[in-house]
Amino acid sequence: MNLGKKPRVAIGQAGGPTAVINTSLIYFIEEAMKSYTVFGIINALQGLMENWIVEIDEEKFKELEPFRFAPGAILGSGRWSVQEDGLQLAVENLKKQEIHSLVLIGGNGTMKACQLMEETAAAMNYELQVIGIPKTVDNDLLVTDHTPGYGSAARYVASTVRDIGEDLKSMRNFENVRIVETMGRNVGWLTAASILLKESQEHPPHLIYVPETPFSIELFLQDVSKVVKDVGYALVVISEGIRDEQGQVLSQISLREGGKTVLGGASKYLADKVSGEMNLSVRAELLGMNQRCCAATVSKTDRYEAGLLGQEAVRLLDQGISGHMLTLIKDSEGDTYRVGKCSLSDVAGKERRMPESLLHEIEQGEGALFKKWLRSLVGDDLEAYPAWNSSQHFLKKGGN
Amino acid sequence: MNLGKKPRVAIGQAGGPTAVINTSLIYFIEEAMKSYTVFGIINALQGLMENWIVEIDEEKFKELEPFRFAPGAILGSGRWSVQEDGLQLAVENLKKQEIHSLVLIGGNGTMKACQLMEETAAAMNYELQVIGIPKTVDNDLLVTDHTPGYGSAARYVASTVRDIGEDLKSMRNFENVRIVETMGRNVGWLTAASILLKESQEHPPHLIYVPETPFSIELFLQDVSKVVKDVGYALVVISEGIRDEQGQVLSQISLREGGKTVLGGASKYLADKVSGEMNLSVRAELLGMNQRCCAATVSKTDRYEAGLLGQEAVRLLDQGISGHMLTLIKDSEGDTYRVGKCSLSDVAGKERRMPESLLHEIEQGEGALFKKWLRSLVGDDLEAYPAWNSSQHFLKKGGN
Repeated sequence: MNLGKKPRVAIGQAGGPTAVINTSLIYFIEEAMKSYTVFGIINALQGLMENWIVEIDEEKFKELEPFRFAPGAILGSGRWSVQEDGLQLAVENLKKQEIHSLVLIGGNGTMKACQLMEETAAAMNYELQVIGIPKTVDNDLLVTDHTPGYGSAARYVASTVRDIGEDLKSMRNFENVRIVETMGRNVGWLTAASILLKESQEHPPHLIYVPETPFSIELFLQDVSKVVKDVGYALVVISEGIRDEQGQVLSQISLREGGKTVLGGASKYLADKVSGEMNLSVRAELLGMNQRCCAATVSKTDRYEAGLLGQEAVRLLDQGISGHMLTLIKDSEGDTYRVGKCSLSDVAGKERRMPESLLHEIEQGEGALFKKWLRSLVGDDLEAYPAWNSSQHFLKKGGN
Repeated sequence: MNLGKKPRVAIGQAGGPTAVINTSLIYFIEEAMKSYTVFGIINALQGLMENWIVEIDEEKFKELEPFRFAPGAILGSGRWSVQEDGLQLAVENLKKQEIHSLVLIGGNGTMKACQLMEETAAAMNYELQVIGIPKTVDNDLLVTDHTPGYGSAARYVASTVRDIGEDLKSMRNFENVRIVETMGRNVGWLTAASILLKESQEHPPHLIYVPETPFSIELFLQDVSKVVKDVGYALVVISEGIRDEQGQVLSQISLREGGKTVLGGASKYLADKVSGEMNLSVRAELLGMNQRCCAATVSKTDRYEAGLLGQEAVRLLDQGISGHMLTLIKDSEGDTYRVGKCSLSDVAGKERRMPESLLHEIEQGEGALFKKWLRSLVGDDLEAYPAWNSSQHFLKKGGN
C-alpha cells in the first residue's frame, strides 16, 4: 500500500492502431491524473515485459495532449505473443514501480492478455486491478454493441466505396469491374459498411463478400457477369479474409511480422480471374492502413465514445472493480448508447462474427436494419450520390 | 448560322476523373445556359465520334446539379485513341446538331484532341470554336501555374502520408518500413506533395522518389537502411512511374484497358527487395483511385478554381476566342492566382516535369519554396502531428 502517496496506474495501447485509440488514451490520462500517478507503457505488452514504463507527469502530458485526436497509438503499439514467463516479468515490472492498476486499450487478444495478467498477479500474490478499454476497427468484440475504432473505419469504407463507385461509373466504357478489398480477416463488419450509402440495386457497390459466408469463385464470376450485363459495370467489395468452402483464404501475402501472416491480395487474385476468364477490364483496389488511420473521415460519435470510455475506465478504477472491460449498451429506445461493463472472460480471445440474420437481411433486401444501426455510429452527414438517368441511358448504349 | 436561335455549345469530360472535374462542368453549364443551348457529350471523345451528344435542358440540369461537388465525371469519361476518320465523324456529329462551339475538360492529351478537332473542322470548312479547361491530378500541364484536380489530390496524398506515418510509428517495433506508392507515370508532383507536413528530418516521410530522377535500387536499399538506423523506422513514398537509369519502369501491371499499360506495383517490388535483402519487416501500400476521387479531402481552393475556370470558359466563348486553354497565373505578390489563357499548341501533348531546381530544393533542404506554393493550393487547415520526445527515446531503446 502506498500510504500518503497517490495510487499508481499504468496504461498501454495494444494491437493495430485506430483513428481514435489516442482519444481513449488522452481522456483516460487527463481524468486519471486527478487522483492517480499515471504511467504510460511504451509498445504495449512488449513494453510491460521489457519495463518500458514511464511516468506521465504534467510536462509529458503536455507533449501527449496534442495527439488527442490524432490516429496511431502514440505510446507505441504492436503485437506480442504472451508467454508465461513474460507475464511474470510484466508483473514484476509493475511491482518495481508499485503500480497496482493496469489498463489496456485493445481488442479480444488484448482482453485475453488482461485476463492473463490478472491471473498471473493473483498467483504471485501481487494485488493488481485490471481494466480493459475496447478498441478495434473489426468490431469483433462480444457483449459490447460496437467497439470504438469501428465507427471511423466504417465511415472511411462507406465514403471511399461511394467515391470509388462514382469514379468507376465515369470510366465504365473502359473499365468494367473494380474489386475493392477491405480489412477483415475473420469478420465482415467493416466490409459490410460499404453498403451504407447504396440506395438502389443499380447503385454501387453491387456485390459484397464477407468471411462469414463461404466463397465460390464460380458463383462470383456468374454474379459479376450478371451485374455488368444489368448495370453496365460492377463494383465489388470483399473482405481480405474471404475463404472457400474448405476454409482456405483466397490469397495471402506474408509480412515478416514476427512470423504472423498478414492477408491481402484476394482482390488481385479475383481480378486476375475476371480478366482471365471473362472479356472484361478489371482493377483491384486494396484499401490499406488508411482504413484504420484516416483522420479526414473520423466519426464524431466514434471519437466521443472513445473519449468517454477512456474517462469511464477511471470510474471503474475508483470503484475498485477489476477483471472487466467497458462496453457500450444500446438504449432500448432510439440509437443512443450508454456505458456498461462485462467480465473479461466474456470477451477474451472470443470473436463476434456477423450473425446469420443480419447477413440474410443484407443479402435479401437493402439491409435497412444494418444501415440504421451503422448510421448511429458513423454520423448523419454522409450522403449518397444520386443516380443520373441520362447517364444510365447512355451507359447502356455506350457500354458493352 | 443559327439566326434567331441561341448559339450551341457542347461540353465533355476527358481522361481520368478528379475530385473537382464535375465542379468545372456544372459551373460551366450553369453559366453557359444563360446565353447558349448546352449539349453534354457522354463519354468524351468516344461520345463525340459515336454521337452521344445530349441537350442539357432545365430538367436535365436539375439531374446534373447535385453532382457539382461530387468526384468522378458525371458525363462519363474514359480514354480513346483519336483517328483521323474519327475526328471527321466527330465534326459531322457536331454539324448535325449545328453545334459551333466545343469545350473539353482534360489534360495534355485532351488539349491535343481539342487542337485536332479545330484543325479537322477548319479543313472541313466547318466553323468550330474550341476551348480547353485544364484538369489533371498529375499537374503536368505547361503554362498554367497549376491545374484543377491537383490541389485536392495533393491534399489527399499529404494527409494520407501524415496519417500512415503516425500509424507506422505506432507499429515501429513490429514493422520497420512502409513503402507508399502514389500516382505519377512520368512526373512527381503528386508524390512530392507527401512532404507538405514533414517538419523535421525525423518526421515521415523519410525518403521520396519521383520519375524525374533515375532510380537506383542499390542506393535505395542503402537509404532505407540508414533511415531505419537513425530514426527507427522508414516511411518511403514513390511514384508509380519511377524508373532506372535505362528508363525502364520498375514494375508494371497490365490492365486490359484498350491495350493501355497501367503502372502499379513498384512498391510491392521494392518491398520484396527490402524484405529479401535486409532483415526488416516491410509493407507496400498502393494508394488507389482514392487519390483522384476522395471527397473528404477536397481542397477548397481547388474546388473554387475548378468552378471559376468553368465559368471563365463561357467568357472566352463570348469573346469569340478559339484554340485556347484557360490557365491560372500566379500574381506577382502573395499566393493568389488569376485566370489567363494560352494557345492550345503550347500545351497539347506536352508534359511539365518537376524542374531540376525544385527537385534540388526538396532534396537538399526542407523544400520550403515548394511547400509554400503547395500550401496555397491545398489550404492552411492541414496540420502536421507533432513529435513526442519520449516516444523517440523509447523508439531507440525498443527498436532494432
